[in-house]
Amino acid sequence: MATIRDVAKLAGLSVATVSRAINGSGYVSEESRKKINRAIKDLNFRPNEVARSLYQKKSKLVGLLLPDISNPFFPLLAKGVEDFLHGKGYQVILGNVQENSERAVDYIHAFSQNNIAGVLSAVDGDIITYDEFKPLVFLDRVGTDSEYSIHADDLSGGELAARAVLETAPGGIVVIAGPKEVDRSHERLQGMIKILNQSKSRYFVVHSSSFLLEDAVKTAQEVFEHFPLIDTVIAPSDIHAIALIQEAYRRNIRVPADLQVIGYDDIPISNLVVPPLTTIHQPAYEIGYQGAEMLYQLMNNKKVNQKKIVLPVTLIERDTLRKKGRK
Amino acid sequence: MATIRDVAKLAGLSVATVSRAINGSGYVSEESRKKINRAIKDLNFRPNEVARSLYQKKSKLVGLLLPDISNPFFPLLAKGVEDFLHGKGYQVILGNVQENSERAVDYIHAFSQNNIAGVLSAVDGDIITYDEFKPLVFLDRVGTDSEYSIHADDLSGGELAARAVLETAPGGIVVIAGPKEVDRSHERLQGMIKILNQSKSRYFVVHSSSFLLEDAVKTAQEVFEHFPLIDTVIAPSDIHAIALIQEAYRRNIRVPADLQVIGYDDIPISNLVVPPLTTIHQPAYEIGYQGAEMLYQLMNNKKVNQKKIVLPVTLIERDTLRKKGRK
Repeated sequence: MATIRDVAKLAGLSVATVSRAINGSGYVSEESRKKINRAIKDLNFRPNEVARSLYQKKSKLVGLLLPDISNPFFPLLAKGVEDFLHGKGYQVILGNVQENSERAVDYIHAFSQNNIAGVLSAVDGDIITYDEFKPLVFLDRVGTDSEYSIHADDLSGGELAARAVLETAPGGIVVIAGPKEVDRSHERLQGMIKILNQSKSRYFVVHSSSFLLEDAVKTAQEVFEHFPLIDTVIAPSDIHAIALIQEAYRRNIRVPADLQVIGYDDIPISNLVVPPLTTIHQPAYEIGYQGAEMLYQLMNNKKVNQKKIVLPVTLIERDTLRKKGRK
Repeated sequence: MATIRDVAKLAGLSVATVSRAINGSGYVSEESRKKINRAIKDLNFRPNEVARSLYQKKSKLVGLLLPDISNPFFPLLAKGVEDFLHGKGYQVILGNVQENSERAVDYIHAFSQNNIAGVLSAVDGDIITYDEFKPLVFLDRVGTDSEYSIHADDLSGGELAARAVLETAPGGIVVIAGPKEVDRSHERLQGMIKILNQSKSRYFVVHSSSFLLEDAVKTAQEVFEHFPLIDTVIAPSDIHAIALIQEAYRRNIRVPADLQVIGYDDIPISNLVVPPLTTIHQPAYEIGYQGAEMLYQLMNNKKVNQKKIVLPVTLIERDTLRKKGRK
């Protein structure tokens, strides 16, 4: 592989001049720059990013921390991040935390020690600390004291879900609450409860310990065990809703005739299950894309117009809630 | 933050000695080593990985290239990789190629330029070249001339799927073939066709251009348009099978009474769809775990017992094929 010395020799210039040109760290004449570029091309020279990153104290790498890539919400978010940053010449490296805060801490050290240019994180700062990092933008799970963040409007999402359910003149309602330590699911729950309380509806709250598929399956079983005659379930994620529909199938309970369900997220598979899932659409791709844009502005010392972005959510009507007023 | 100089000062030793101890690059007495370790602990010193990686020419980072993290097969594989390597003190950074070979090339350069210790790739070497990389282990999509590789036995998997279908005394059969350039789906198809030909069954082959969800949906629609009276479909992935069941639902076709389907992969959601999907189980987690183990042996100059590993697959009987001989 060609070295900076080979480039300098072929260009007929000093190593110091070539180094200045490559690192943009001082004056190089237009003529020298042309010679250097030609030599770089002829030799197929690639400056070693590690050497460059040591010199410049930053790389063209962005770290993305996700709680769990097997939850289909997060690959959508990652796609938005990659689509934006790839166009700007950055590579995204991904740390899959698997809902394990120790692993998150290890990734953070690795990111820091490899001079990563910036971090996007969907693991909030209430769970682990990010002292070592600037710039940093939180996506989705933003925690309580993040400076730069983007997420969807979960309070409105919870309200929308509860209102959609109330329009069907439901019987007994179970609200499944997502994990308490995740701010997003807490806000959703607040929205749901606010509307249900206003309508003076009777409802029960069941807690689910995580968004992992195995916990969704466990929660679905608990709902049927404790509330065998329940009419309506408001789920904290599509995975929870899909697990519930599966459990209803095993128990010969028809959806939506005997049990109606509304999900949350609008993951791609929610339109492919039977029956297709009524749910709240979160703009996961946009969260990733716009969050990456904000980080890009921070990394390049540009002005950030809005430090905290909240994106709207929408109701997606499919087949798991009954039509208005019919039972 | 503490530097190597602070450590040397506190330990009462030269920077060169401390550097030798940290990098394992020369003799350091047992007594000096103890002093250094105590100083490192007292100062909470973390050697900068970039500086260390420049010196040692390798890092504790492993690059994992995946074709598409929104395909639930790959997060399972990634989980196996992370579970093995995390226990050995390596961090896994993930490049999500999104079935785009240009993006794969960009990741490879980024991995190379950041002195990554090794690469695990599910993007095969027939699509892009990996000249810059050693060590390298291919997972799942191994291509034709990989030296180190691990994948499931897709030929047997295809045979198993076809045999399971034949036991139901099927009517007309459609085989959906996965993308031609993916070696795994090609082998599956060979297995299926071999058994169907032996039994002298009549069947049609429909080609699907990728494993992306949107292509699976498109293919499902094409199957119903071209073969409205088809009885049985052998799918190249669970996503294809789930898309087909959804399309049957939209057309009021009952599964499995009027249309039976077998999937491939056994992704977690395949047990949660309605009806639960009969499929071929691929050991995705094991592919990741054992592939990471092989890479670990290579990175640490240990003996690799088996350069090419092929793992067995199994039939998972659920509800989308009819019972034997009944229609």
